[in-house]
Amino acid sequence: MKAVQLGKYETQPVLTEVPDPVLNSPLDVIVKVGGAGVCRTDLHIIEGQWEQKSGVALPYTIGHENAGWVSEVGSAVTNVAVGDPVILHPLVTCGLCRACRDGDDVHCVGSKFPGIDTDGGYAEYLLTNARSVVKLDPSLQPADVAALADAGLTAYHAVAKAARALRPGDTAVVIGAGGLGHIGVQVFRALSAARLVVVDRSPDALKLASELGAEHTIVADGTHVQQVLDLTQGNGAEAVIDFVGEGGALEDGVAMLRRAGNYYVIGYGGTLSVPAIDIISTEINFVGNLVGSYSDLVELMVLAARGKVTLHTATYALADFAQALTDLDQGNVRGRAILIP
Amino acid sequence: MKAVQLGKYETQPVLTEVPDPVLNSPLDVIVKVGGAGVCRTDLHIIEGQWEQKSGVALPYTIGHENAGWVSEVGSAVTNVAVGDPVILHPLVTCGLCRACRDGDDVHCVGSKFPGIDTDGGYAEYLLTNARSVVKLDPSLQPADVAALADAGLTAYHAVAKAARALRPGDTAVVIGAGGLGHIGVQVFRALSAARLVVVDRSPDALKLASELGAEHTIVADGTHVQQVLDLTQGNGAEAVIDFVGEGGALEDGVAMLRRAGNYYVIGYGGTLSVPAIDIISTEINFVGNLVGSYSDLVELMVLAARGKVTLHTATYALADFAQALTDLDQGNVRGRAILIP
Amino acid sequence: MKAVQLGKYETQPVLTEVPDPVLNSPLDVIVKVGGAGVCRTDLHIIEGQWEQKSGVALPYTIGHENAGWVSEVGSAVTNVAVGDPVILHPLVTCGLCRACRDGDDVHCVGSKFPGIDTDGGYAEYLLTNARSVVKLDPSLQPADVAALADAGLTAYHAVAKAARALRPGDTAVVIGAGGLGHIGVQVFRALSAARLVVVDRSPDALKLASELGAEHTIVADGTHVQQVLDLTQGNGAEAVIDFVGEGGALEDGVAMLRRAGNYYVIGYGGTLSVPAIDIISTEINFVGNLVGSYSDLVELMVLAARGKVTLHTATYALADFAQALTDLDQGNVRGRAILIP
Amino acid sequence: MKAVQLGKYETQPVLTEVPDPVLNSPLDVIVKVGGAGVCRTDLHIIEGQWEQKSGVALPYTIGHENAGWVSEVGSAVTNVAVGDPVILHPLVTCGLCRACRDGDDVHCVGSKFPGIDTDGGYAEYLLTNARSVVKLDPSLQPADVAALADAGLTAYHAVAKAARALRPGDTAVVIGAGGLGHIGVQVFRALSAARLVVVDRSPDALKLASELGAEHTIVADGTHVQQVLDLTQGNGAEAVIDFVGEGGALEDGVAMLRRAGNYYVIGYGGTLSVPAIDIISTEINFVGNLVGSYSDLVELMVLAARGKVTLHTATYALADFAQALTDLDQGNVRGRAILIP
Repeated sequence: MKAVQLGKYETQPVLTEVPDPVLNSPLDVIVKVGGAGVCRTDLHIIEGQWEQKSGVALPYTIGHENAGWVSEVGSAVTNVAVGDPVILHPLVTCGLCRACRDGDDVHCVGSKFPGIDTDGGYAEYLLTNARSVVKLDPSLQPADVAALADAGLTAYHAVAKAARALRPGDTAVVIGAGGLGHIGVQVFRALSAARLVVVDRSPDALKLASELGAEHTIVADGTHVQQVLDLTQGNGAEAVIDFVGEGGALEDGVAMLRRAGNYYVIGYGGTLSVPAIDIISTEINFVGNLVGSYSDLVELMVLAARGKVTLHTATYALADFAQALTDLDQGNVRGRAILIP
Repeated sequence: MKAVQLGKYETQPVLTEVPDPVLNSPLDVIVKVGGAGVCRTDLHIIEGQWEQKSGVALPYTIGHENAGWVSEVGSAVTNVAVGDPVILHPLVTCGLCRACRDGDDVHCVGSKFPGIDTDGGYAEYLLTNARSVVKLDPSLQPADVAALADAGLTAYHAVAKAARALRPGDTAVVIGAGGLGHIGVQVFRALSAARLVVVDRSPDALKLASELGAEHTIVADGTHVQQVLDLTQGNGAEAVIDFVGEGGALEDGVAMLRRAGNYYVIGYGGTLSVPAIDIISTEINFVGNLVGSYSDLVELMVLAARGKVTLHTATYALADFAQALTDLDQGNVRGRAILIP
Repeated sequence: MKAVQLGKYETQPVLTEVPDPVLNSPLDVIVKVGGAGVCRTDLHIIEGQWEQKSGVALPYTIGHENAGWVSEVGSAVTNVAVGDPVILHPLVTCGLCRACRDGDDVHCVGSKFPGIDTDGGYAEYLLTNARSVVKLDPSLQPADVAALADAGLTAYHAVAKAARALRPGDTAVVIGAGGLGHIGVQVFRALSAARLVVVDRSPDALKLASELGAEHTIVADGTHVQQVLDLTQGNGAEAVIDFVGEGGALEDGVAMLRRAGNYYVIGYGGTLSVPAIDIISTEINFVGNLVGSYSDLVELMVLAARGKVTLHTATYALADFAQALTDLDQGNVRGRAILIP
Repeated sequence: MKAVQLGKYETQPVLTEVPDPVLNSPLDVIVKVGGAGVCRTDLHIIEGQWEQKSGVALPYTIGHENAGWVSEVGSAVTNVAVGDPVILHPLVTCGLCRACRDGDDVHCVGSKFPGIDTDGGYAEYLLTNARSVVKLDPSLQPADVAALADAGLTAYHAVAKAARALRPGDTAVVIGAGGLGHIGVQVFRALSAARLVVVDRSPDALKLASELGAEHTIVADGTHVQQVLDLTQGNGAEAVIDFVGEGGALEDGVAMLRRAGNYYVIGYGGTLSVPAIDIISTEINFVGNLVGSYSDLVELMVLAARGKVTLHTATYALADFAQALTDLDQGNVRGRAILIP
């Protein structure tokens, strides 16, 4: 089959012919790729930033946001059948460790991460297992939802957690309405009756957030903390959902938080730095968020099938992967770039 | 190997030679049985009461409360190794359905139940899989804990659920301090600082409950509802944990419940019958309880290893299975009968 | 002031002149009534059905669903000021008992219930206290929301509880889309992304439910249980929210419930009767629901102010109270009847 | 009556004659002080550190950890009667704001703090209100429990929160087994079956922690982080409960935390500083903790009455207050100093 493989860090990957994947275990599933998201992480992998962390042996196939159709299944697979459209949870988990037994897939002690530490989805076929595949509603096309597999799942996980603690009359602030954030806004609107305020530097991003249902939008122009306080009678918001996590977002976000409020950390790059006295005197909490669980992805696909979460996508043929990477790098992709093998 | 097989309903099972189990899948595990609990359900199976429900083909090997040592593992098994002492969760679950993915094993849509609908543990070896085996602390002997696999797990599940809603100053009533109940009392004492009242018809059972840490014991002599009310300033208890579920226990239990209280149904035989007006005007809840999850069994084994939950057992050689069944049937077993192959 | 007082059971109340209420305590609040809901309970009170239960001394003023404007406040009242539009929580609570301290107002051990056991809102003025009054958003008129004070609050309380346990992809069945039920449908739609199925005998009620956002409506014609099972692949619904509670609703509702599902009891009249074996083998729960807490009412008013919960009302002058009661008794009120003093 | 009043910052308070407090409101309660804890905060108040923060007008009576007997009650007080032994929640709360209505007393928007911003308990009598007084079990003496009113309540609040998320088999680390910490250890032992590891610089403090039920104690000698990792197979602890919050405790504590673990911040002085990437990649949470709610104090008193939480105290006559302050300042008090008027 054809696959885009990275042979050496800091050089362009190449489209090449590789052996088709084969089933190794009764729980294995081979997926004919229908869409593979092109993500900024792919640029970082090529640059070598993940070399130490992933420890993957080169050459290998990148692509960690995948959806497609089941092509072949192992003998013990009961949840999908050949031909089913599926989206893939980013992790291939063991199913046996304590985290897996409690439904907390992302903390599996023995997971694989296709596209990061093993062959991914910039290819015609991809090897995964039964624990990763979520069957899609017939109304959904793999290429349309592939980018929800990682970015969307992270946004869903954090926002659903926040929504469980919010009530009508509460206020939540989303910081950052870009790639993850604008999915987060849609998820928030589907799950919560609390008031949503969105803060971003970009008026365009705020315009989209407003169309997606945010009650208030605020340009991050230096007065944004005060504007949030003004909107909340000086009390601050019950939840801050931070998709940025750098460039002052953390400091501003903490200043927007109400007593006993929850701060959801999703974006990163900066450092959370808060005197302990400020944490205890106001009894605020900081909540870490990684990608969601398998059940989170099932739920997100329900929202997608009902039209409550949608993505703009720009599709490229697999052979045009280099153009997609260049467009992404130069900021020329509107929405998410998707490779179609 | 030797196994006790039921060849025909309403006749005595026989000890016979059968082929050793073999691994069929990479997740399979073969366990050398170290102890198999002899349970009243085994008598009911022999009498044919489970014929319709289980649909098992005869002959087959009974025994559904099992522990032992890992004898052989499939290639994908990572959580146990040959030689490990293990206790077996009663269900062999699929790991793929929604319930399994959420850690809610007992609602697996494709589970097997060794000893009920497939070969069980009255044998030298037993086939199970990696999802069922819980590795034991070195301080625990399989024969000592085998009976916790089903009866103990049910008690743990219900009591742990009740404990999560109780606070110091609250009162819980355990109805029935027999086989399950006296485990429930031990679990309650380990998990909750609430006050525990135990009601039973048998003064001996109450004496044991008292030794195990119940603050109050009440003989079920017709005045027991009033005694509970007297102990709670007429308000009733925040929780009633009913291990009996027949013979008036349900009616009495509901009468002991405080406004906004929770009634945990575990025992069965009777019918819960309550006017809806009484449910809504006091806002009480009824909570069903089946056997616990895999994680529940892991937690119960932690308590067992720390000496917080113990069982009286009477051991029999596998060849003496008929004597064990007879002793159980005639009420001549003190604690739980365990077959040692 | 003018008030409608019941002087004798089984006779018509009379509009009469009574002394204005006066402040007795620093936390007291006197409200100029802006709207008082006319409820079926009022008919039952007149018939004498509440005589034993309320123990109220006649004559007294009925009317237990009230909203208006603050007319006078005690010296310790800090949450409202004279002139504020307010809705009244149905209970005047003590604020000191354990239930009150935990925000569980309806289980207050020392509450008063104006219109039931003390003077209510069929009058120009009403005495309540600071713990009962919820300030209204300026967009809301007391007469428009008065009927949410009791019926609406009950629906909100139950549905919000159900919503907290439901996820996208789950199914909830509302039984009964009448007075409470159609509020419940609106609350459900505001709080949950789960799928909503509504069952009622009346096609008109179902039409309204559908307009309010129910995904499926089913006429209760004898095939309704099977239809719910068909909609859920034979599994049943994760939640049944029963606003009827009599006439077969309970039996049907239990048959619609999925394993590990929750049954919310709100309507009454019938008896919940379920063999314990059925409760434990499927691990289902029954959850009682009374009227909501003060915080529930605050949240419901947020939804009302945002237009997410609305009511049809038919207004009557206070002097026309007898006509309102007659219209209600004869089924001639569309929506809720409201007295305007 | 006699009272110890602070007339000027940075000078010694004086024992003087002041008017007896009088009831101002129907919910007011006057307590005859039976014991007033002498706390390091009192030294800080005298030094003027709280001048800005409290804004209290001098002279006033200090003392914020109080217990005694009810001496006089307002007409609306229903939860205590004259002569009842009581402990006082540190805050006098409004009962009307959102936080109060939800049982979250410490976030009351209109609370008073006797001994900090109004007259406290270094006196014969103290004015408080019905919302602050918790009736004591007859087995408890006010002077023995007074110091639980603030320090003990803080420890209870944090540890009870941690206990709700812990299961048998989990590990919790308590950092700091001093004044609050040694109460925390007792509370932990009463509420949780998880394993407890205590870290402190003082071998004496660790000896006491061990006697109070800690399974492991570790001297904070620079190897303590590694020792915690060794005890947890390199994974770290599910919970870290930090009563120190300065001098490297925060950095060490974070290093001891397992993936998806919870860090409870109680002690302060230092700054929590963690790169956002470390928060999200391990999905850890930071949980702020202030003093507990009224219900927390009720529960702590239940544990105290059952002998599960005890304190060492050194008693002084009210006239000897200066000696008590000096002894505290010089480290000569074993346990807590209590003034007895």
